[in-house]
Amino acid sequence: MKLHSMWQEYPALQADLSASLQLMEKSLKLKNKEVEQAILSMIHSGGKLLRPAYQLLFSAYGSDKDREKAVALAASIEMLHTASLIHDDIVDHADTRRKLPTIRSEFGNDVAVYAGDYLFVCCFKLMADYASSMKSLQMNSRSMEKILAGELGQMSKRYDLSVTVEDYLENIRGKTAELFALSCFIGAYESGTSLRFANQAREIGEAIGLAFQIMDDVLDYSQDAAALGKPVLEDVRQGVYSLPLLMALKSDRQQLLPLLEKQDAMTDTDTHEVYRIVQESAGIEEAKKLAADYTKKALQAIQKLPETKDETKTYLYQITAQILGRQN
Amino acid sequence: MKLHSMWQEYPALQADLSASLQLMEKSLKLKNKEVEQAILSMIHSGGKLLRPAYQLLFSAYGSDKDREKAVALAASIEMLHTASLIHDDIVDHADTRRKLPTIRSEFGNDVAVYAGDYLFVCCFKLMADYASSMKSLQMNSRSMEKILAGELGQMSKRYDLSVTVEDYLENIRGKTAELFALSCFIGAYESGTSLRFANQAREIGEAIGLAFQIMDDVLDYSQDAAALGKPVLEDVRQGVYSLPLLMALKSDRQQLLPLLEKQDAMTDTDTHEVYRIVQESAGIEEAKKLAADYTKKALQAIQKLPETKDETKTYLYQITAQILGRQN
Repeated sequence: MKLHSMWQEYPALQADLSASLQLMEKSLKLKNKEVEQAILSMIHSGGKLLRPAYQLLFSAYGSDKDREKAVALAASIEMLHTASLIHDDIVDHADTRRKLPTIRSEFGNDVAVYAGDYLFVCCFKLMADYASSMKSLQMNSRSMEKILAGELGQMSKRYDLSVTVEDYLENIRGKTAELFALSCFIGAYESGTSLRFANQAREIGEAIGLAFQIMDDVLDYSQDAAALGKPVLEDVRQGVYSLPLLMALKSDRQQLLPLLEKQDAMTDTDTHEVYRIVQESAGIEEAKKLAADYTKKALQAIQKLPETKDETKTYLYQITAQILGRQN
Repeated sequence: MKLHSMWQEYPALQADLSASLQLMEKSLKLKNKEVEQAILSMIHSGGKLLRPAYQLLFSAYGSDKDREKAVALAASIEMLHTASLIHDDIVDHADTRRKLPTIRSEFGNDVAVYAGDYLFVCCFKLMADYASSMKSLQMNSRSMEKILAGELGQMSKRYDLSVTVEDYLENIRGKTAELFALSCFIGAYESGTSLRFANQAREIGEAIGLAFQIMDDVLDYSQDAAALGKPVLEDVRQGVYSLPLLMALKSDRQQLLPLLEKQDAMTDTDTHEVYRIVQESAGIEEAKKLAADYTKKALQAIQKLPETKDETKTYLYQITAQILGRQN
């Protein structure tokens, strides 16, 4: 059981996250042991577990102190996240994730389709078993609906060179921010807070998710071209344009257009050239600025939360500042 | 709105099924209109709607006469069924279903993955919005879990020539019977019957589902070889062996083995030869006999149900006899 080192500073949270992982493990029961093992490896591959962490933190705000329940609902959200990663890897033809072979590359798309479905269902099962209110299940399915409608909408925009920053934000609001928002909402609401408070938590989660995804997309362009992983170049070749590129398209459109218009016929030289142009453009800084705006929004909203007896509020602030790359 | 002609004899049920279809239609909201249209075509392609029909029929047994709710829960089950068909078509590399191009053949596996996920989620949304009891959601996710664990288990048994009739039954119990069982259970339980009655309904649904799948597999071997659709030959080539073939493997093992051992290198001549051997074997009749046993079990259990003021019980009996190919 290997938890990301960032949780060492937060022992109580670390213990709850470990318990969530253990429950995820226990929930998986497949006759096909190879596939079970592959899913387990994925669960243990050192993802940060940010969604369950926020969910657990917000569950300190209500009067319901049922730890088993909070841990189970956190596990449920992480299973949902893992399910969507397995299916994303099919769509993105991804061979590795966190340096491990993806389920699709190891067992084929067929297994990956059902393995993702199976984890979706495990998520709903834990949720139905532990949630106190039908409202949480309704929120959960509405969030999932937004995420998937967003993914499908996005696919029809591949190679669309008129995609705007607003389109991008709408896209990541579905793709990433919605699940952060849901985690914070369910954490609060299922611990017995008011709906009003849970919706505040939801907004904080959304801002965190937006900042997180933008920073992730910026990071893709922050490495040495030589050390570049396949993903960002592949995304460009597949017509998926993230914020730094969209920003660069404003300032360096004439240079970028002839390269991007080759679509999936782009050579490695072409994609590296796109990469270099974006890196040298103002796009990176502008994207960072937008991330900083959302980070600020999230941190200010956290500061306005009621004080807690324990250190929950301090932790929320610290962790958010930390993952979004801000000095405390 | 084209409903299968079999429902003309049952006007009230026909009206409810139409309402379920309409609700499914209304629930789909995608920006990607092409994909939305493809899913709609699939919904309207004349599937028999057996699962929602059983669900609606069993909902007459409780005291809750909320028609809107019964219709919504029936729509939810059919969406679940449609979602699983979309994903099955990815796994089976199927190009057509009910004479229409499959989502995967028209839009690619990528779209099909998310389209199926989206329908799964729509199912859970309707269920969470309309079900009165968390128990139904728990049953729903447990059924889905069984179905998917079954599908994954099955994949590891492809080309396994030691698969037994018991393995086959376990497989179709998950693949087909579970959803029939769930439909009957939820129809009854959500209309306010006792848990005991709902479990009786569940058992009837399971027997119907088993008989239904066996008859379907028998039908695959009942056509003229010339008129043969691709599916059964493709299944054999992909190492998926259904009951008639498994039965024939007992009587004609020596003839069949050398052909089947070629696995996906089987030529069209090989698969036609397998087809002919099975057709001429005792396998067909033995499979039919097993289907008849389950049909009898279902019909006897229906006869033992309490009498209803309306014709629900008669309809349950008639429809079951009809779809399982028995003379009334």
